[in-house]
Order: sequence, then C-alpha cells, then structure tokens
Amino acid sequence: MKQHRLQQQISFIIEIDKMKDILRRTNLINDKRKENDAEHSWHIAIMAALLFEYADAEVDILKVIKMLLIHDLVEIYAGDTYAYDEEGYKYKAKREASAAKRIYSLLPENQALELRSLWEEFEEHKGPESRFAAALDVLQPLLLNYETEGISWKHHSVQSSMVRERTRLIKDGSSSLWEFATNLIEDAVKRGYLAE
Amino acid sequence: MKQHRLQQQISFIIEIDKMKDILRRTNLINDKRKENDAEHSWHIAIMAALLFEYADAEVDILKVIKMLLIHDLVEIYAGDTYAYDEEGYKYKAKREASAAKRIYSLLPENQALELRSLWEEFEEHKGPESRFAAALDVLQPLLLNYETEGISWKHHSVQSSMVRERTRLIKDGSSSLWEFATNLIEDAVKRGYLAE
Repeated sequence: MKQHRLQQQISFIIEIDKMKDILRRTNLINDKRKENDAEHSWHIAIMAALLFEYADAEVDILKVIKMLLIHDLVEIYAGDTYAYDEEGYKYKAKREASAAKRIYSLLPENQALELRSLWEEFEEHKGPESRFAAALDVLQPLLLNYETEGISWKHHSVQSSMVRERTRLIKDGSSSLWEFATNLIEDAVKRGYLAE
Repeated sequence: MKQHRLQQQISFIIEIDKMKDILRRTNLINDKRKENDAEHSWHIAIMAALLFEYADAEVDILKVIKMLLIHDLVEIYAGDTYAYDEEGYKYKAKREASAAKRIYSLLPENQALELRSLWEEFEEHKGPESRFAAALDVLQPLLLNYETEGISWKHHSVQSSMVRERTRLIKDGSSSLWEFATNLIEDAVKRGYLAE
C-alpha cells in the first residue's frame, strides 16, 4: 500500500517534468529566449518568500508558495493562455478544468484533493493567499518585460492600457507592489518599451 | 526607506533570473535538452511538498521548500559543479562562499542573513531539513537519468558504484526514498542505462 502510494507520487513528479517544455510569451533578461512555466513558477515562489511583507492582508506564506509552485500545472495539457489573448481566454476555464482532472488524478487521493483545491482557490481569486499569489504572477512578467525593454510587448503589439488593466490584479493583493508596478509601467512608456 | 528596501529586493529578483541560464548535466525527459537550475529547484520544491511524509525526522516543510528554492543560487557566479567532477569539487566550497557573499548582499540585511543561513545549513548537511532537502536534490536527477535511459550517465561514463555512493545522501534523509532509489539503480543497471 505504502509502495503504491509512493509510486503514484513518483509518476506525478515525472509527469510534471513537462512543465519545463511549456513556453510563455515572456522573454528572459539575458539570453532573451522564451521563459517556461517551471522557471516562472520557481521565480514567483522566491518572490513570495521575499515580498510577503507587502501583502495587504495577513497570508499563510507556505500556502502562497505551494499555490505558486503548482498554479500552472494545468498548462501541461491546456497550454499557456497569453494574458492578452481574448479568444483564448473564452475557453481557458473549460480546457483547464479538464487538464486539472487529468494531472491531479495521478496523485494519491488526499494530495490530489489538496493540490486541486489550492489551484481552484488561486483561480477563484478569493482569500488573501490567492490575491497575493496573483499579484506576484502578474508582477514577475512585468519585471521581465521591463528589463528586456519590452521585446514581448512590442512583438505582440501590447499597449499600456492593456498592461494597466492586467496589473490591477496586483492592487487586489498589495497596494505597495501596485504602486511600484504603476511607476514601472509609466517609466516603460517614457522609455519607449511600451506603446502609449 | 521602505522604497529603498523594495528596490533592493527587486534588484535581487532580477539578478536571479540568471538561474535560468545555468545548465546542469541532467537531461529533461521529453525534449532531452539540459535542465537548468531554476527548473531543477522548482521540481524539488514540489517534491518536498509531496514527499515530506517520508522524511525520517520531523521537518519544517516551509524551511525545506525555501532551502530548496535558493540552494543553487550561488551557481549564478560559481557555476554548476557536476556531481562526479572530483577536480571541480576541490574548489567548490571556496567558489561558492564568494558567490554567496555577492548574491545575498543585494538583499536587505535581514533577508540576506536569512537566505545565507538557509544555504549554509543546506551545505553543512546537519539538521533534519537539510538532510531531507539533500535527499530530494539527489533523487530528482536520478529520476530524470532513469527516465531518459541514462543519456547523461552514458555521456559522462558514470558507473553504478559512483551513483550508489552519491545516493547515500538520500539514506541520511529518508530510508523509504533510499530504498526506492536503490531499487531504481539496480533496475537501471539491469536495463543497461547505467554501467555496472
């Protein structure tokens, strides 16, 4: 029984290696290649550990970190949906719900329930942990876009109003980080990284 | 003052984007390219969240996860030292201590101290958290090597005795995971993935 449980956990751990092949639209600062989901998830998990003092509400930091580590796992089957892809967003929920069923069913039941519930909480954007997690999920690509002088914004013809709309999610989790993000966007426009 | 603190934290967050460019010797299961440090750190952080029931001693799981997320940051300046590179290991400690000073000094002092102390604890391999963390750090590449039919082992002429020696680190953190790893190595030899 114990061996079967460990085998299920190992199967899941092997399956999620695929996260390293799921490309996002954001470019890395140095070699400019597209970032993948595993790298993004690692980056925001560290950001959570360092920035949780700026969360507007008290957060359970272990819960935030776990949420961020697993929040994109559904993309192994559902693919990454670009933040500014309106068409893709229409079917995102349906695609991801079916992907969640598939990926989490690999785990022993109690862990499948725990991780699925963490993911659902993240998606529902209720509660202090999911709001703070969402703030970091939005802030991280903003930093990369700024540091790469807006390569991805330019490539996808993204305008500042779209970025401002998207970063409102930061406001729900952290007023300090939202203020920082707002200034960064303003500066990105001034420097010509982002179209007004 | 608060703004300066946030600026320090953001500078660190931007600097560690370089972890995505530090290649390891392990190959990914699907596209077979070399894994990088950010991907590896993400993978073992999730492994910790799922497998901590197998730790031989009680562990503070938040501490284990934070330790794993940051344990390889020194490699941004010190580079990855291959597990079976005896020459590289001679100077590893010195290279990494100097790298630690450089990377952590970007952070506000209290966080520089916290992260540096977590890294030192990991390196010293004392205490239940660092022993369990080290077990996962060794188990993860073993899984990838097995799943890729030993590409990296073959390429670097690694023999089973070397892998067995290396995986003894797992025994210090988890007897269940060590038993699992021992069986996996035996099977890898049988299947010809790893030279006897």
